[in-house]
This record gives sequence, structure tokens and C-alpha cells, in this order.
Amino acid sequence: MREVAVVGVGMTSFGKSQKSNIEMFSEAAMDAIADAGLKSRDIQSLFLGNVLGGFEEGQIGMAAFAAADIGLPNIPATRVEGICASGALAVREAFIWVASGAYDIVMAGGTERALVMGTSYATRTFQMGSDSRYESGTGVTFPAVFAMAANLYAKKYGIPLVKLKEQMAMVAVKNHKHGVHNPKAQFRKEISVENVLSGMVVCDPLQLYDCCPFSDGAAAIILASADVAKKLAAKPVYIAGVGQASAGPLHNQKDITRFKAREISAKAAYDMAGLTPEDIDVCELHDCFTVAEIIAAEGLGFFEFGKGSEAVEKGETTYGGKITINPSGGLKAKGHPIGATGVAQVYEIVKQLRGEAGERQVEGAKVGMTDTLGGDACTIANIILRA
Amino acid sequence: MREVAVVGVGMTSFGKSQKSNIEMFSEAAMDAIADAGLKSRDIQSLFLGNVLGGFEEGQIGMAAFAAADIGLPNIPATRVEGICASGALAVREAFIWVASGAYDIVMAGGTERALVMGTSYATRTFQMGSDSRYESGTGVTFPAVFAMAANLYAKKYGIPLVKLKEQMAMVAVKNHKHGVHNPKAQFRKEISVENVLSGMVVCDPLQLYDCCPFSDGAAAIILASADVAKKLAAKPVYIAGVGQASAGPLHNQKDITRFKAREISAKAAYDMAGLTPEDIDVCELHDCFTVAEIIAAEGLGFFEFGKGSEAVEKGETTYGGKITINPSGGLKAKGHPIGATGVAQVYEIVKQLRGEAGERQVEGAKVGMTDTLGGDACTIANIILRA
Repeated sequence: MREVAVVGVGMTSFGKSQKSNIEMFSEAAMDAIADAGLKSRDIQSLFLGNVLGGFEEGQIGMAAFAAADIGLPNIPATRVEGICASGALAVREAFIWVASGAYDIVMAGGTERALVMGTSYATRTFQMGSDSRYESGTGVTFPAVFAMAANLYAKKYGIPLVKLKEQMAMVAVKNHKHGVHNPKAQFRKEISVENVLSGMVVCDPLQLYDCCPFSDGAAAIILASADVAKKLAAKPVYIAGVGQASAGPLHNQKDITRFKAREISAKAAYDMAGLTPEDIDVCELHDCFTVAEIIAAEGLGFFEFGKGSEAVEKGETTYGGKITINPSGGLKAKGHPIGATGVAQVYEIVKQLRGEAGERQVEGAKVGMTDTLGGDACTIANIILRA
Repeated sequence: MREVAVVGVGMTSFGKSQKSNIEMFSEAAMDAIADAGLKSRDIQSLFLGNVLGGFEEGQIGMAAFAAADIGLPNIPATRVEGICASGALAVREAFIWVASGAYDIVMAGGTERALVMGTSYATRTFQMGSDSRYESGTGVTFPAVFAMAANLYAKKYGIPLVKLKEQMAMVAVKNHKHGVHNPKAQFRKEISVENVLSGMVVCDPLQLYDCCPFSDGAAAIILASADVAKKLAAKPVYIAGVGQASAGPLHNQKDITRFKAREISAKAAYDMAGLTPEDIDVCELHDCFTVAEIIAAEGLGFFEFGKGSEAVEKGETTYGGKITINPSGGLKAKGHPIGATGVAQVYEIVKQLRGEAGERQVEGAKVGMTDTLGGDACTIANIILRA
């Protein structure tokens, strides 16, 4: 297979938007095209992550309309959906079509409107990402699943829950602090551990600031063969490895303090890249809840199992620590428009590896990684990038 | 890229089902695995076409749950959606992952429940496949679009509408006749031109029997590298070419008696295969409406533009004619569970090229083709197969 590079990236600001999914996508896509120094007509195919377009604006088959909106009515355009991991799956499909030699230049995008749905409807539709036969009807929403994970984590590793809650709060504090420097983040305001611990209880032990927000937004990236990449405007960032794995319904998963799908997916990405966790300088991972960041950091191999929460407390996951996690602010502060998130994570890593991340730059970052989770960890995808 | 073969096929009967989408998929998938002489664990990845699972049974992220249901909880499993072409897009994604050398054995499946939704809800959700900004709200449903195409076809080619209606009726009569010999078809009953012409008017000039039904059902196929294929039980059928193209919203399409997306997609497939329309012995094409079959047969190059309806009248599209079209009964008689259709079309072509189609066998068929259309022809995909 051929070497593949990211040659252009774009994203909207995340937050609340009055634009349609396709309008948001187009904004991000045109930014990516300009960033690459390409013209629309150079793009040979599109993969689009979107989850709720049918429910939210009555639009299915969105990829073909999205392609037309950026002046490409006739290219192959395919929507992919793996709940909150949809954007990462779009990137992986775009990758294989370039790596195989079938196309030279392919776009991966993602777009979502969830904040404008309102909390009730958003919660109801998100819930459809759980197993509909035995689980979603029981009321076990995603906050409930990650609340169970937090309780199990505390018990398994002998950490007093009151201690773990403080450490989880530090994840939120860190990601909000990072988000202050991201002009596209939904929240650009520092918070304190006290703010987190005095917040409304969502699902014990998770409080309001332990949870990422609903968000509207879009992101787009352009992948190209290494040969093409070398001729283009922006400094290419290479895709060193990709991985994807599944885990089935929650009742089939043995230990939700370690997601099996993540371990399989990450191993696939590391193996393809010929790299190990020690090589990763910066990571954008799926902090849909504060405890999810801790679990992810362990699952990706950055910390021993059971040591992830302590690592946060020691400052190992921010600037100057062992690895900077979620410099963008993460899902927690940057926002989480679910179909776009996997693409937006690649956007951030590319900015970091190009040295274009401004005040949130991780100095000397050469290798970065993304981690995107769908549903009850039933789908996870990872992408490793290098400068 | 490597040569890719279909090594196993399976499908449920089409019609009304009380099973869930995943249960139907599993039935088809296990049949395909048995047909290939494989075990579940040999499958390395899954692509699943499904359109309405969120609306119909509150299930998004379906691919991962579908994989788990056939004993493969951890493989990469991705849902793809391009409205009624979703199944064909799943096949094309499975193809590239094998062709690229990334995987040796990949499954493509499709599953849908639409008949059980009832006509009102099915119509409402199908309508979401039109452009939601400017078109779907106007009431231009898919029958309306194809009714316009029929009127335009008659006018453009100077065919009296009463004559075209008879020729369209002959498409329905032929496909019902074919379907009698398909044990998995939704309708296995011959009809007459008189039956068609005395049917309820759906959207003038389309009457009830000019329209395919709503259907429930699933299909699955297994793709493998040529090396693997040669060692397996079933006679391999090779994928000679694949194509996919888009066309944006209807208001951007200049001539709906010729779909631009089809001409681009078919050319891509023919070019990859190094074949021409003359080489195709048997074709499963997207006869969602009788006029759609006529338009498709022209767009694929089997007949001159404006001569497709006459070709039906002359018997050129059935056994003994120039090319046998829809020996399975097509969408019209076999049924149209939208996420599954593209996969089920490949099922039929594989059966034909293996010489396993029983009473509906096209004698001596060596090369076959599928054609799958989504929405207002905003997405079309084609696959060419050879024995």
C-alpha cells in the first residue's frame, strides 16, 4: 500500500449553529481545500461521517448532497456511521482508497447538529447507539455506562471514590484550560476542581462538568498520496497507522474499565506504524466523560492500568508531562459534534505536528494519535500521524 | 490492486418479516459463510448497508452489533448509507479493503425493514433521501420523480404516452414472470399488461404495478483475494470492475431521462473491467419503477437512448433476448429492502455466473452486472462480475 498524507484540514467553530449540516460541512471543506492549496475539482471522492441528520433535519443520503455543495456533484460520496466514531471511520475509508492506489486525493469530513436538538431529543437519539434489543430500553444511557465504569474503576484499583472524583475533576479542569487557547472551542473558560465537584449530579459519580457537551460543528481533511502531497502547499503530515475494532453490545463486554475494542484497534494502528505508546507526543482522545479520558489513556498504553487517574493528578497529561492529552480542549471543552469528532481530532493533531497550534502548541511534537469511541465502546478507531 | 472474488453469498426471503434487522442479517450472513465453506472467525471485517434502522427500531451504529451477532464482536464493522444504494456501497468498500491487500476476507451485508413500517411511515422516511433544503418538503416523492421521468421520456423521444405505458407495463409483466422462479422473491405471481393498466394510479403515469413494493429482508456476500478464493468451496466469481458516482439534488440534474451519475459510475466499472456493454450477459438493475428499468438499461449502454422501451416490447430484456435483465424478478417482484438491495443484486449475479440459478438460469452467462440507485439518482453504484 502507498504512503498517505494529510494535506489539508478545516473545521468550523464548535458550539451552537444555525447552519445546516451541509452548510457547516462546506465551510470546513472549503477551508481544508484552501489549506491544501487545491481546487474543489481535485478531490476525487468523499467520505462523510454523520449520525443524526435523518432525525435532526430529515436528511439521509447526506454525502452526495454534501459533495454537490462544494462543487463536486459527481464524485463517489459515501456516508459512514459508527455513532460517535463516525468521523474516524470516514478518515479510515478515505485512507484505504488512497493507500490502495485507487485515488490520489480523497476528502474525509464529518458534520453534526446535536446542540440545536435540545437535551431531551439529543439524549433520546444518542441512546439509539446502544443495543436496541436488550439495553437502550432499560434506561442505561451513556452517562450511566461511564458512571458505572467510574465506580468499577475505583473499586478495581482500590481508589477511594472521593479521590477518584477529584482526579476526574482534574481532567475537566485540564481540558478546559487547554480549550482556552483554541479559538474554535465551544468553551473557552477555565474551571476549578471546586466548580466540578459542586456541579449538578448527572449520574453518580459523574457531575455536570464530568460530561462533554452536545455540540454542532463540522470538520474536513484531505488525504493524498505521498507523491501528490510533496507538491502541495501545506506541510504534509503522514498517516503512519490506522486501526478499528468493535465490541458488540455492553452485556457482552467483560470489563468496562478496559475497552477491548480500544486495545485491538490501538494495537492494529501501532503495528501498522511500527511504533509504541512511548513514541506518541500528543494525543486527542475520546473524553466524552472525564473517566473516559482516564480509561482511554490507559487503553492506549500511555499509563499502566489503574494508574491513569494518578497520572492526571501528577500533571503527566498536560504540557510538560509524559504526553499532552487533548491540547484542543478535547470533547469536554472543544465540543463533540458526534459525526465530526473523529475528523476534528485529526485536524488538531495535524496542526500540532505542523507546529501551527499557536498558544496550545505541544513543543517538538513529531508523532500524534487520535482515539474515537462510538456508543458503549462498541466501535473504536485510532489513527497515528507523524510529521 | 489485487484481484477480488465473491466466495460466498446468502440472503433471506424478501417480503414481510417479524425479525429484527440484525436477525435478518445474521440469517443471510451465516448462509454466506456456509456457502463459502468458511467459519465466522475467518471474516476480517464487515461493511453493512442499512438506511432506516434508527427510525424503524431505534438502532444506529448497527454494524458493530451485527458483527457481534455472527460471532465476530471485535472485527472492524462499518455501516455505510447511500439511501437505496447503501448495499452496493457496502460491497464497494469491502472490495477495496481486499483489493488493497489490507484484508483477505471481508463481508458486505445489507438489511432493512420497510414493509413492516407501513406505507405512510415508510414513505415519510424514504422521502428523507431527497434534498431536505429545497425538495423533500415540496412533496416530490420518488414516485413523483419517476412519473416526471416517464412523461419527459415520452415527450423527448416522441413516444405516445399510452404506448409508453404499455411498454412500462411489459417491464412489470416480465419481472413478475422472472420472479415466479425465485424462491426468495416477495411476489411469485405472474401478472398481465391489463392488470398493470387497470391498477390504482400512484402518480400519473405510474400505476400500482409500475412501482416496486416496500420490503423487509437482508443479504450478505463474502469477498476474498483470488489466492484465498481458489482454496474455497464455492466456485469463485470475480469482481471485474466497480463504479460509484453522485449527482447532487434533483434541481441540479439537467435530464432525468438520463442519470449522469449512472453514466459516470458505469464508465468507471467498464473501464476497470476492460469490458463494454456488449460483454454483459445478465444484469440486475434498479427497477424501483418500471420506467426506471428502461432508463437504466439505456444508461448502462445496453440500448440506444430512446430505444429502451421498445427493447422491452421486443423481448430483448428477457431470456433469449439481447440481455436478460432482472432474472431474479428485480426490485419489482423480488422486493426492495433498501439497505440490502445492492448486496442481493450481487447474490443473484453470482448465482447466475455459477450456473446455480435453477429455473431462472441465464444459459451460458459469463459476465454480469449490477446497478443500484439511491434517492433521486443522487447516488449510483455499479459492479461487474465474471465467472
